[in-house]
Amino acid sequence: MISYRPIGTVRSPFTRLDGMPLQSVAAEAVRGRIEVLPEFAPGLKDLDGFSHVHVITHLHRGRPGGLEVMPFLDDTPRGVFSTRSPRHPNPIGLSVVRLIAVEGGTLEIAGVDLVDGTPVLDIKPYVPRFDVVGAERTGWLEGAAERVNEVRADARFETDS
Amino acid sequence: MISYRPIGTVRSPFTRLDGMPLQSVAAEAVRGRIEVLPEFAPGLKDLDGFSHVHVITHLHRGRPGGLEVMPFLDDTPRGVFSTRSPRHPNPIGLSVVRLIAVEGGTLEIAGVDLVDGTPVLDIKPYVPRFDVVGAERTGWLEGAAERVNEVRADARFETDS
Repeated sequence: MISYRPIGTVRSPFTRLDGMPLQSVAAEAVRGRIEVLPEFAPGLKDLDGFSHVHVITHLHRGRPGGLEVMPFLDDTPRGVFSTRSPRHPNPIGLSVVRLIAVEGGTLEIAGVDLVDGTPVLDIKPYVPRFDVVGAERTGWLEGAAERVNEVRADARFETDS
Repeated sequence: MISYRPIGTVRSPFTRLDGMPLQSVAAEAVRGRIEVLPEFAPGLKDLDGFSHVHVITHLHRGRPGGLEVMPFLDDTPRGVFSTRSPRHPNPIGLSVVRLIAVEGGTLEIAGVDLVDGTPVLDIKPYVPRFDVVGAERTGWLEGAAERVNEVRADARFETDS
């Protein structure tokens, strides 16, 4: 087993998955914060020069499930690793959010597609030179991805813990 | 603490950090494999429709360090969260690789910027509609990112374990 300790916590207007935007891109107007633990705050130096950051999280509210999942954006069960579902075997979240300000250990962010209280495992700068690739094929999401602004998450995978 | 179990392992021509490309984008010609554990292989269904995937890894060869780090691409110490260094407090790796083929539990990939034996925590489809943002500012990496094809990793952070 590999063990990580959260470096901070997401503060968000969403208290549950039900009704939440599916991706940051569908949540551009949604503001929130990342509260980084004081002992890690010195590691945020130089981050304020970046307009966007990757936030890697532990999706604590997704109920673990099987290896096929019915995606929010489809009506056919799909192999879980071909989806962005919150119920991967290791429920790791990957969000790219806009960084508005860094004040001490607090990041003011926009594009929040995460539930309040989500543990943050890592923060990295978003760098188009590294992170943008020309992807020719996007499988079952080819047309479905365009519906990301119309569809919201629902409670199907949610736990209360 | 949050505990994850690897779902598979990276097979790569690189046996150590020293001399390795810094990012997938600088390793486009480097082929390798992800060997997914048999119990998770059914979760790969539908993944073969995607040309690129995110691979989230545990960077087991990076020596944990402090909250400032000297990046491979710079000569000024930077806050660790503003870097793509392998020595973040939780050493989680984020790679976008080209998916060449899926055969049973094995993914044939290109763009390998990972050491052989790296544990894989998660695989997600790369979807430009979700993953590409127009980042106006890239901080200290503004010019430095362009050197990614010239500079290689070295042994400064490497452990043997």
